[in-house]
Amino acid sequence: MSAPIAIVAGAGALPWEAAKRIAPRRRVIVFALIGEADPAPPGIETHAVGYGQIGRIFKLMRENGCADVMFLGAIRARPDYRRILGDVQTLKLVPKIVRAVVGGDDSVVRNVMKLVEAEGFRVVSVPEAVPELLAEVGTFGRFAPEARHEADIALGARFLDAASDFDIGQSVVVAEGRIVAVEAAEGTDAMLERCVKLREVKRFRAPRGSGVLVKRAKVGQDMRSDIPVVGAGTLAKVIDAGLGGIAVEAGRTIIAEREAMVAAADKARVFVVAR
Amino acid sequence: MSAPIAIVAGAGALPWEAAKRIAPRRRVIVFALIGEADPAPPGIETHAVGYGQIGRIFKLMRENGCADVMFLGAIRARPDYRRILGDVQTLKLVPKIVRAVVGGDDSVVRNVMKLVEAEGFRVVSVPEAVPELLAEVGTFGRFAPEARHEADIALGARFLDAASDFDIGQSVVVAEGRIVAVEAAEGTDAMLERCVKLREVKRFRAPRGSGVLVKRAKVGQDMRSDIPVVGAGTLAKVIDAGLGGIAVEAGRTIIAEREAMVAAADKARVFVVAR
Repeated sequence: MSAPIAIVAGAGALPWEAAKRIAPRRRVIVFALIGEADPAPPGIETHAVGYGQIGRIFKLMRENGCADVMFLGAIRARPDYRRILGDVQTLKLVPKIVRAVVGGDDSVVRNVMKLVEAEGFRVVSVPEAVPELLAEVGTFGRFAPEARHEADIALGARFLDAASDFDIGQSVVVAEGRIVAVEAAEGTDAMLERCVKLREVKRFRAPRGSGVLVKRAKVGQDMRSDIPVVGAGTLAKVIDAGLGGIAVEAGRTIIAEREAMVAAADKARVFVVAR
Repeated sequence: MSAPIAIVAGAGALPWEAAKRIAPRRRVIVFALIGEADPAPPGIETHAVGYGQIGRIFKLMRENGCADVMFLGAIRARPDYRRILGDVQTLKLVPKIVRAVVGGDDSVVRNVMKLVEAEGFRVVSVPEAVPELLAEVGTFGRFAPEARHEADIALGARFLDAASDFDIGQSVVVAEGRIVAVEAAEGTDAMLERCVKLREVKRFRAPRGSGVLVKRAKVGQDMRSDIPVVGAGTLAKVIDAGLGGIAVEAGRTIIAEREAMVAAADKARVFVVAR
């Protein structure tokens, strides 16, 4: 058995799903961010930590001989660095932490990773530690994209690749050849909720079942941070928005809560496809 | 005096502002779209028309010797082509109209213009008919962008140029090096309202006064359709979103209600700049 692995857990089912999959083969210690992480399931070694407890995370990792760490789950609040500084035990970390939280989402994560690595830990990726969470090429569930969806999937993928340099979101809604919504700071869920409202005000008039949520990793994405994730929650919002399905990038997207998601997709007659 | 010019008026102050500026030098006939256009000001020759009255517009234009037409103002609803077909008097128009309203915002307008031109009319642009509405290079009002805003303006402009091929919106909010919101089907106002909400949920944490609304014409924009417009309403929402100012493209952006906008910008200490 390898040395234990730490998971710093933000919101959603994903950190717990990863922990449960890893646990049979390797000891897992989860640091659940207070105000972000979902409640811990039974049987997983968990420490609740605030943003101000980076020093405590490092200390517990060292005490447990834990060299590897994964960052999983959504960070809903962009933490205020004054809170992060709460209990930092070594003053030399302060300027690094301040630098870490300035800039785009992606650069925050990159900077936090640098900080963690400078302390001697290794940040590992889902493909390394829990590859079974990644979407493989193919369709999930009973439904596949129809001819009318293919052009929208291609357009969304081209847009996301073109926008990739700009560190915006990683998803877009396309319907009948038109880009309806582009994700930036609001996140995928809020973007999908916007599509529901756009239907109400008649700015999104494509027939129900005709649009697609397209989600892709950035070009050159560091797979240790901010990999695109879709799950049962994403699917529920895709259904609310009246879209035909979800298209993700195979090998570079996490499918969380796969069984629940596929069952819901089949019931609603929407597709989930990885290319 | 030239032959009369028609204005097909959507929402906002712009169509009426254009009509009032043109009226001293040329007869203007405004076709005010019911459900879209603001109330007509006194002294402007106006016909209220529904989407289903294209035939009537063509007839009145011909009766008045009117060869030129401008399309101005926002179309909030994407009209249903069944309504547009309402009173079309020549059946040969039907397939053209159906084609006109399928596709992105931009292609709707392009197709409507083709349809109008096929009937023998000339679609004219703001630069041709009312150039005084365009933003000239410079700052409007007392405040200019500070050093901290310049990088955001440049980033927004680069993003919009890169996204230009995709027929999404023409504006973006950038703050402290991060793209906070991208406009697609929701329009500029709704995007700015989203920034207010993003502040509430702490996904947009830049200090008040530090972000910029960047708005540009598309690369290769047909200036007869969908030119970017900013006005007093835009400015009010920029202030609500806590941004530092507005940066538009000189010569290719309309400044509507300029006096009211500049007065409000000065009062709120925000900048409006055209480059």
